[in-house]
Amino acid sequence: MTNSSSLDASAFHIYDTTLRDGAQQEGLNLSVQDKLNIAKHLDSLGVGYIEGGWPGANPKDTEFFAKAHSDLKLKYATLAAFGSTRRPNVKAQDDPQVRALLDSKAQVITLVAKSFDRHVELALKTTLEENIAMIKDTVAFLTAEGRRVFLDAEHFFDGYRSNKNFALEVVNAATQSGAEIVALCDTNGGMLPNELGEVVHEVLSATKARIGIHCHDDTNCAVANTLSAVDAGATHVQGTANGYGERSGNANLFSVVANLQFKKGKIVVPSDAIKEMTRIAHAVSEITNINPNQHQPYVGFSAFAHKAGLHASAVKIDPMLYQHIDPVLVGNDMRTLVSDMAGRASIELKGKEMGYNLEGNKEVLTSVVEKVKEMESRGYTFEAADASFELLLRNELGEKDPKYFTVESWKATVEQSENGEVTTEAVVKVNAGGKVLEQTSRGNGPVNALDKALRAALEKIYPELAKLELIDYKVRILEGVKGTGAVTRVLIETTDGNSQWDTVGVHENVIAASWNAISDAVTYGLLKANVK
Amino acid sequence: MTNSSSLDASAFHIYDTTLRDGAQQEGLNLSVQDKLNIAKHLDSLGVGYIEGGWPGANPKDTEFFAKAHSDLKLKYATLAAFGSTRRPNVKAQDDPQVRALLDSKAQVITLVAKSFDRHVELALKTTLEENIAMIKDTVAFLTAEGRRVFLDAEHFFDGYRSNKNFALEVVNAATQSGAEIVALCDTNGGMLPNELGEVVHEVLSATKARIGIHCHDDTNCAVANTLSAVDAGATHVQGTANGYGERSGNANLFSVVANLQFKKGKIVVPSDAIKEMTRIAHAVSEITNINPNQHQPYVGFSAFAHKAGLHASAVKIDPMLYQHIDPVLVGNDMRTLVSDMAGRASIELKGKEMGYNLEGNKEVLTSVVEKVKEMESRGYTFEAADASFELLLRNELGEKDPKYFTVESWKATVEQSENGEVTTEAVVKVNAGGKVLEQTSRGNGPVNALDKALRAALEKIYPELAKLELIDYKVRILEGVKGTGAVTRVLIETTDGNSQWDTVGVHENVIAASWNAISDAVTYGLLKANVK
Repeated sequence: MTNSSSLDASAFHIYDTTLRDGAQQEGLNLSVQDKLNIAKHLDSLGVGYIEGGWPGANPKDTEFFAKAHSDLKLKYATLAAFGSTRRPNVKAQDDPQVRALLDSKAQVITLVAKSFDRHVELALKTTLEENIAMIKDTVAFLTAEGRRVFLDAEHFFDGYRSNKNFALEVVNAATQSGAEIVALCDTNGGMLPNELGEVVHEVLSATKARIGIHCHDDTNCAVANTLSAVDAGATHVQGTANGYGERSGNANLFSVVANLQFKKGKIVVPSDAIKEMTRIAHAVSEITNINPNQHQPYVGFSAFAHKAGLHASAVKIDPMLYQHIDPVLVGNDMRTLVSDMAGRASIELKGKEMGYNLEGNKEVLTSVVEKVKEMESRGYTFEAADASFELLLRNELGEKDPKYFTVESWKATVEQSENGEVTTEAVVKVNAGGKVLEQTSRGNGPVNALDKALRAALEKIYPELAKLELIDYKVRILEGVKGTGAVTRVLIETTDGNSQWDTVGVHENVIAASWNAISDAVTYGLLKANVK
Repeated sequence: MTNSSSLDASAFHIYDTTLRDGAQQEGLNLSVQDKLNIAKHLDSLGVGYIEGGWPGANPKDTEFFAKAHSDLKLKYATLAAFGSTRRPNVKAQDDPQVRALLDSKAQVITLVAKSFDRHVELALKTTLEENIAMIKDTVAFLTAEGRRVFLDAEHFFDGYRSNKNFALEVVNAATQSGAEIVALCDTNGGMLPNELGEVVHEVLSATKARIGIHCHDDTNCAVANTLSAVDAGATHVQGTANGYGERSGNANLFSVVANLQFKKGKIVVPSDAIKEMTRIAHAVSEITNINPNQHQPYVGFSAFAHKAGLHASAVKIDPMLYQHIDPVLVGNDMRTLVSDMAGRASIELKGKEMGYNLEGNKEVLTSVVEKVKEMESRGYTFEAADASFELLLRNELGEKDPKYFTVESWKATVEQSENGEVTTEAVVKVNAGGKVLEQTSRGNGPVNALDKALRAALEKIYPELAKLELIDYKVRILEGVKGTGAVTRVLIETTDGNSQWDTVGVHENVIAASWNAISDAVTYGLLKANVK
């Protein structure tokens, strides 16, 4: 375990490749503006290098570098442009792709080069000698032009296994020509930590190179592989935000940074910047439009959530008994889940999270536990329905919340006519503000139509509801709850554009269960908007 | 690297805890039937042990063991019941929780015991001596009753750091009293591979115990930690399907097994069983109703997908240049374009399972693959809808199946009247046996009412349908399939009393999607009953 107490960004590189290798992820497409926004977030985490893309190969990336130089004010990070060594049998200065790297004006240029003999022969279709010359020429040309050059040795570990001498020659050629870093890439992602660490150690012993590491997660070991390389002496680590990347993704840079900082005692980003990690992870997933992984280590919504009732009472005594670090260090929070194992301790903790002090309030705690148990025995769950739980809690606390509306009746009809067309209509009749409101709406399904009809009816009294949108809907059939027949549980997620909340409804009829969840969602939305 | 060429399930344990520790995952709720179904899938992967739950602490788990003994025919796995050592200051035989473990009739009992001194004092509120006595008594009592006992040493690594002697005393007490395995648990999940491996090595040197390992993924290293323990000499590994579990999840058993088998040369499950891994991973996520992680190592939809244009031509020359193992080994497929999971090999295999010999029938295989791809791009899935797949396959094979019925129209209405009563009515109009049949039915929900109405209408012609019952119903909203808005996917399970089958329906409207799944289910039921 290394111990260093202060940050020296030149001694250890955190190198982010979200914008280049991360963008290879299936389904991930970033605009130039997306890339600029992500770069700002990564900079605020304090990473040392941000690889912006491959100028010359991709017009969007060329544009990114142009805009980055004028628009991005980076506090910590240096931009790097990625590209290939010169093509076979061309001078480096005559290769338009190499010129595009210079034109990007990036201070750091990361060149990818082949280090696996079979790839040189089968994919690049040239000789091993020419491949070495390509590396030497390109590195020398770019350093002579005043750029710092890093080299990504592609397929290094497979190459080392296949032809150790050639792989080492690649490392030496780059270093001797002026490359600052040679990053060993486990391009196919098949390595495990022990063997990878041994290879890194051997390369460090056999060459004078400063070694970096670039891992993929195909064995589910990308983070551990990266740490193993650092243990062996690598001083430059590559990874991506949220582990984005081709196939199973790249090494998750957030996990790598948090492990180095909190487990290895290596200060690799500023301590106040790492407290932004959870926010940054979520902000990046908003930009990529990929649902955040709620179980993601350190930054996931569930990363510090406790379910087992067994734990809750001990968590109250000392949270550190049940968590590996204080979640505040990465800007995350401990959460307690209200589940069928819930006791008073977990209800108290949950209440506290929501801003209700229940400490010592034995009577309310007992009545909430009773109520939760009784409802859970009928099929409710509150673990993924915080808003329904808060409504229940406020009710047990005797909060004088307004009764926003009462339901007279509702009806939903779905029909497939003889021409095959499917239509849906809902009619809702409610009392609110002393009036009977009736509304008919169409929708793409019965729940959508009922939701629209209810909100359209109530909007006449509560215009705040116009912002609400139902964004997720889950249905589950629960068998034989408490000796009765099957019941249906519906969970819905609603947003007002700023935040979102989850509610639950249970009924033997799926539409009635949905109605109950919708009704809770609307009530909670009005409460949240402070409507009196 | 160990090399063993044949499977010896007693020399190395693959121990699955999906049904117990995996079920601690936020949002995961399993019925008894779900648990039985998952156990069957895990058994077909060839795992040695399946931990079914905590009988006595949870009525559902008590029921699971009762049903498992009568219903589950396991080929490879032994069931284990999980529970705690006796309470402080009570005899083991007098502790109802210990008795419930015996009553579960599980051959293997896995006892959890505290091995972190602070937990004994603060959470358990007893002395270290009493904790050791609790372990000795409970292990001795259960082994005397003829059960095999494994011990989960909870918070072992934190405990070892805090009080090494006490942690080792726990291991010795368990071993000397007859526990076969002491599984060291990184309960808070904060360990990294190197340190964890060192501790395992030290424990093996200091005791006579056979050591197991149980990891959580809070540092993103659960799989690597597990492998590190195996490198140090552990011969029993615990994990969960798809890495389900509390917070960031448990060690992903699929990754652990594939790494051991393909990277370490350790045969831990039968080679033909591991080829089912991708199918099993997806089938389990259909049961848990949790979206599969498409980037999951080895089994994810994207795990062998290549996006980079750079790779495409070389992939053609030799796919192994760009993949770390042959995906066929785990039942997955290489994909070079954005397409689906199905390849000809898996279609051929699936067909074979159903009794259709498609070997060499390139034309049909290609047309089925095309059809599956097209339907999957619209939101269909056939992983958990074998009956719908078989109907599709028969159609492509040109089987002359009777057209049992055609649909004229249908309508479902759900209504809550002013007295609060919820009623549902469905009207179905179909053509069968040359007649137009119309039927109105009530039900406890729109799907139930439509199902009843369709079968009641058709029973006049096909009395075989009277036996059919809809036994499970699952709904999932799929966002933005192929650039359109959200669509709804419905999976239903139907039984005729002897066997059961699964069908799928997709539509933007949940009721129409349900109708499609019901219609497939009825057709399949008639086909199965050999109705001409």
